[in-house]
Amino acid sequence: MPRDLYKAVLGEDEIPTHWYNIVPDFPTPPAPPLHPATGEPLVPDDLTALFPMGLIEQEASAERWIEIPQAVREIYRLWRPSPLYRAYRLEQALGTKARIYYKYEGASPVGSHKANSSVPQAYFNKIAGRTRLTTETGAGQWGAALAFAAEVFGLECDIWQVRSSFEGKPYRSAQMAVFGAKAVGSPSELTEVGRQLRLKFPDTSGSLGMAISEAIEEAAKDPNASYSLGSVLNHVLLHQTVIGQEVLKQLAVFEEPAVDYLFACAGGGSNLGGISFPFIRENLEGRQHVQIVACEPKAAPSLTEGEFKYDFGDTVGMTPKLKMYTLGQDFVPDPVHAGGLRYHGMAPLVSHAYHEGLLSAISVKQREAFEAGVLFARAEGIIPASESNHAIAGALRQVRAATEAGESPVIVIGVSGSGQLDLPAYTEFLSGQMPDT
Amino acid sequence: MPRDLYKAVLGEDEIPTHWYNIVPDFPTPPAPPLHPATGEPLVPDDLTALFPMGLIEQEASAERWIEIPQAVREIYRLWRPSPLYRAYRLEQALGTKARIYYKYEGASPVGSHKANSSVPQAYFNKIAGRTRLTTETGAGQWGAALAFAAEVFGLECDIWQVRSSFEGKPYRSAQMAVFGAKAVGSPSELTEVGRQLRLKFPDTSGSLGMAISEAIEEAAKDPNASYSLGSVLNHVLLHQTVIGQEVLKQLAVFEEPAVDYLFACAGGGSNLGGISFPFIRENLEGRQHVQIVACEPKAAPSLTEGEFKYDFGDTVGMTPKLKMYTLGQDFVPDPVHAGGLRYHGMAPLVSHAYHEGLLSAISVKQREAFEAGVLFARAEGIIPASESNHAIAGALRQVRAATEAGESPVIVIGVSGSGQLDLPAYTEFLSGQMPDT
Repeated sequence: MPRDLYKAVLGEDEIPTHWYNIVPDFPTPPAPPLHPATGEPLVPDDLTALFPMGLIEQEASAERWIEIPQAVREIYRLWRPSPLYRAYRLEQALGTKARIYYKYEGASPVGSHKANSSVPQAYFNKIAGRTRLTTETGAGQWGAALAFAAEVFGLECDIWQVRSSFEGKPYRSAQMAVFGAKAVGSPSELTEVGRQLRLKFPDTSGSLGMAISEAIEEAAKDPNASYSLGSVLNHVLLHQTVIGQEVLKQLAVFEEPAVDYLFACAGGGSNLGGISFPFIRENLEGRQHVQIVACEPKAAPSLTEGEFKYDFGDTVGMTPKLKMYTLGQDFVPDPVHAGGLRYHGMAPLVSHAYHEGLLSAISVKQREAFEAGVLFARAEGIIPASESNHAIAGALRQVRAATEAGESPVIVIGVSGSGQLDLPAYTEFLSGQMPDT
Repeated sequence: MPRDLYKAVLGEDEIPTHWYNIVPDFPTPPAPPLHPATGEPLVPDDLTALFPMGLIEQEASAERWIEIPQAVREIYRLWRPSPLYRAYRLEQALGTKARIYYKYEGASPVGSHKANSSVPQAYFNKIAGRTRLTTETGAGQWGAALAFAAEVFGLECDIWQVRSSFEGKPYRSAQMAVFGAKAVGSPSELTEVGRQLRLKFPDTSGSLGMAISEAIEEAAKDPNASYSLGSVLNHVLLHQTVIGQEVLKQLAVFEEPAVDYLFACAGGGSNLGGISFPFIRENLEGRQHVQIVACEPKAAPSLTEGEFKYDFGDTVGMTPKLKMYTLGQDFVPDPVHAGGLRYHGMAPLVSHAYHEGLLSAISVKQREAFEAGVLFARAEGIIPASESNHAIAGALRQVRAATEAGESPVIVIGVSGSGQLDLPAYTEFLSGQMPDT
């Protein structure tokens, strides 16, 4: 009686063997990245100072399926396949006849989906002979994930953590240190860019855009170093498609052939792309008609309030220009916002899918997000990451609408991470002191 | 090829249906608890002010197998069976031919094994009509677990958290608050006992014994309340035997018929008893010859340096007297000790097994424990709880001895919890500032 299952836990032999590349399946091709100086479409050589060739090839690939190297699958086996749960207790708490499932990525070693990309990124750098990785991190999930992956493949790892997060989340830098990485607050005194930003904005709480500029500067000046990005780029979203592929297999275990709604949080787009792209393929091939809903914070609403245009990925303008929904390269989210997902842009592949009408988007204020997170935690036991709370809030809106309409849809929620290290934000919410940004 | 598996993940239908009670299998019967005032063996009625009858019956039961109620198994399904991993990467890091397995309880909703007992404790209180639970917590794992279970069954929950932990671990009280429970630092102003202790020891960092006294006073004066204990008592160890039963099934999946060594950390004894009692049964029935090693902190060495005698379970002397290895009811562990497992005594069932030679014990200083934990985290990705680090350290000693002797034993480690909320202790260790207590 599969419908009685609480969780579909697949064996290690069910870990996907390939990543799914959505590019060849798009009805129209996405716009190419442009060289920041010339404005011409980027060629692979433009990226070799920052990335190893294995990742550059993935970034530009037109192949639908890209094989996952054995060495990466070995590390995935430490936590994958991740579980898909039927949320019986949440359904009961809501009094709904909707069937709600959630994919939980928080049981990975670092507590989020980010390890799905940090491991292959470290691997392709290792086989290219690089010995050091630099990166940025906002909430700290990506930094922790890259620290873990760098340790696995014996690489050094230096992390620029957005200052407000570095100061407010000491547990995150401790987690990176356990894996042997070094984190500093950004903007820092360690880079030219950082020193300039500190002069210009002495009181800044930092931003992902600033931290990206610092990490890129550092990688560009060290020939043994690569830069790693935790979201936005095509190859990052590619790696995350293991999530959605597993969900499809697990829904079959539950004997659930069709989903009505898929909710996932969206900051840079790696979680959303990873869980939804395999479902977009289902839609494009006519097997399903899933409504995919990107749930972004009202404090950084790139899809719902941004402009679809070429913009830089960082603050200073060191990256290629990407065609994406953006709030502008110098956007700094409200420092009182604790809800995560603070990036100014949205992954070009997600932006393109949104522009083509292949997914929809909503924005959620943080109090609604945390209210949903507390309800979820009390029903299911799992305390979700701040980011994941946006997806849960989106799903709850749908459940309430369905109840009013007398409908019982099948809903999947992407719970991208654990909220254990976001507990101070929960305290702020429970005490009534969280600003409703 | 089962030997290639990284983790044995059983289906929900493999969750044990019964708890295993070791009492009838002991070669000699354990000494009974005594009434604190009369010194006579306790009768069930002596406990009805504090506990519901369902738990009192378990406490005194002579039945080998006690059925797990359906409502409890439903909640266990949220995270059980927990995974048993083959530690390939740790083996490789150690350069050993030993085969190392670890049972990971840290993926439970609250991050430790404690939920295995909090859920049935809340359940039996619920069906007895109690509406409120009081308890103590040290590191915070038990408090979080009871908060979760109380929420599941709709009970109020008040938690006295050892002061040093309450002040140093704000994430833990936040976690309890997410589940709707209230935590206060102990000794507190809320109880007569607490007020007296604060007068007598104004600078005390608190102890589990003091917090137990406060929680008992509060439960005794409220007819709707019960007291819950997270370790030590027979029924708590009984509930935890789901761990060891699952390990036996999972070793069969790995086609590993016999274990040479089992290492588990020991504070009050619930984790050690839970994972080891099913193995003691294997030994007593001649199926295996497993050497079971309790790993306790040098800072609270009840088995290795305590005395086997009748003592109180709390500081003030409100509990029955228990025959156990103890450092004395007024023992207060060194406040600089961050390694967990700070209780003055040891569960009577574990003490009895130790006295009868059915298990052995070692003590570990906290720097050795954290060194082992960091090595483990860097190999396996999982950051273990402070407590679990003691078991890992014990296993590493054995691996090194085996390497010198040219042996390749089969070793199981009980990793009782996640260290995500212990990260400040890791920082202290990595910075070289952890006192070696």
